[in-house]
Amino acid sequence: MELSKYIDHTNLKMDATSKDIAKLCKEAMEYNFETVCVHPCYVTLAKELLEDSNVGVCTVIGFPLGMNTPKTKAFEAIDAVENGADEIDMVINVGALKDKDYDYVKSEIEEIRDSIDGKTLKVIIETSLLTKEEIKKMTEICNETFVNFIKTSTGFGSRGASIEDVKIMNDNKNEVLEIKASGGIRSHKQAIELIKAGATRLGTSSGVEIVSHKCDCDDNCNCGDDCHCEECKCEEE
Amino acid sequence: MELSKYIDHTNLKMDATSKDIAKLCKEAMEYNFETVCVHPCYVTLAKELLEDSNVGVCTVIGFPLGMNTPKTKAFEAIDAVENGADEIDMVINVGALKDKDYDYVKSEIEEIRDSIDGKTLKVIIETSLLTKEEIKKMTEICNETFVNFIKTSTGFGSRGASIEDVKIMNDNKNEVLEIKASGGIRSHKQAIELIKAGATRLGTSSGVEIVSHKCDCDDNCNCGDDCHCEECKCEEE
Repeated sequence: MELSKYIDHTNLKMDATSKDIAKLCKEAMEYNFETVCVHPCYVTLAKELLEDSNVGVCTVIGFPLGMNTPKTKAFEAIDAVENGADEIDMVINVGALKDKDYDYVKSEIEEIRDSIDGKTLKVIIETSLLTKEEIKKMTEICNETFVNFIKTSTGFGSRGASIEDVKIMNDNKNEVLEIKASGGIRSHKQAIELIKAGATRLGTSSGVEIVSHKCDCDDNCNCGDDCHCEECKCEEE
Repeated sequence: MELSKYIDHTNLKMDATSKDIAKLCKEAMEYNFETVCVHPCYVTLAKELLEDSNVGVCTVIGFPLGMNTPKTKAFEAIDAVENGADEIDMVINVGALKDKDYDYVKSEIEEIRDSIDGKTLKVIIETSLLTKEEIKKMTEICNETFVNFIKTSTGFGSRGASIEDVKIMNDNKNEVLEIKASGGIRSHKQAIELIKAGATRLGTSSGVEIVSHKCDCDDNCNCGDDCHCEECKCEEE
C-alpha cells in the first residue's frame, strides 16, 4: 500500500480556523491521504470540502481527556456521524482504567461502537499515562469489543507514540484489530519504523513532509521498507 | 470574604481516579472551599460526597479544547446539571473567535446558558491563545450574554492566568460580570495578586497550600490584602 493511505491528515489545534481546515482538506486530496482528522465542529465543513474525493472524514470524541460521561461521548459520536464522519477516534476514561474498573471502560467503548452505524472506531488509550500492563490490558479490551483500531495517543500528552507502545499492542492484539500510531510523528523515518512495528494507520500533522520525503540513496527509490538513505538510516536498525 | 471561598478546588487530571476525587471533596469540606471542580464523569460522585456540606460542585464543558459542536456542549451541560452540577465552566470555540465569527461564539454561549437551569456559568476563553484585543472582545461578549464569570484558562494551555489578563477583563467588564483566574496558581502571593487585579474566583489544585500559608510578618496576620511577609512580599508591589 502506498504510504499516503496510512495517513490521517490531522489538525486538532485548539485554535484551528475554517481556513486551516480548508487547507488541510486541499492537501489531503492532493496527496491522497486516507482521511482528514478534525475536531467535531469541523466535520460538516470537511465533509463538504471532500465531497468528490476518496478522502474520508475522521473526528475525535471526548477529546483529548476522555473524562466526559459515557452518555455525552455517545451523543457526540452520533452527532459526528450525522454530520458526515466516516471514522470516530474516541478517548477512553483513563481514570476508570486506573481504578481498574474495566467494566466501565469496556461498556463505554461498546456504547459508542453501537451508536455509530458501523463506522470505523478507533480507541485512544493515551499510552503516555499507562504502564506496559495497562497497554496490554487495553489491547485485550479492544480485541474483546471488536473495535477497528487501538490508537496510541491524543497528541496532547507528555509524549506521543513510541515503537515500544506499538510493539506491545502488536504482540497482544488479535488478527483483526489494527493499530493507529499518533502523536509526535514528524519524519518519514519515524513513520516507516512505526509501520514496521505494526501500525497500519498514522495520525500526524506532518503527512505532507512524510510523503514528500526524498531518498538520497536512489532517485527512483519509493521510500518503502528498505530505504537506506542518510536521513532514513534504515540500514542501522 | 475569607480566601477559601474564592477557591474552586480543582482536579481535572486526565487520570484522576475516584480516590483522588474523594480526597478532593474531603479537603474541600475541611478547608471550606467554594466548590470542587471535577470532570463531568465525576459530578455524580462529588455531589454524593458533598451532600451534607456547603461546598458546591463545578464541572467543565467541552474541556479543554472547546472544539465540539454547540449541540454536544449543550448536551454535556444539561447532563452535568442533571447529575448535580451547581456551576458550569464551558470552553469557547477559539477557532470561531479567530475566524471573527462572533455570532457563533455568542450563540453557543447563549445556548448553554439557556440549557442549565439558572446554574452559575463561567466562560473559559484560554487567554494563552488570544491577543489583548481578543480578550477585550470576549469580555464584551460575556457582558452581552449575561454569564456569571469570564475565566482565563483551562490549565492545559501554554500558560495559565496572568495579572495582565485579569486587568484587561476587569477594565472591560460590566458591573455584574465576575472574573475567575485559573491555571498555574500555586502560591498565596499569586492568589492575592489575582484577587487584587479583579478576580473573585480562583481555579487551582493548590488551594490547601494557598489557604494554609503562614505569614512570617505577624502571627495574627490573616494574610489578606496587606500581608508584608517575606514570602508574600506585597510591600514591594
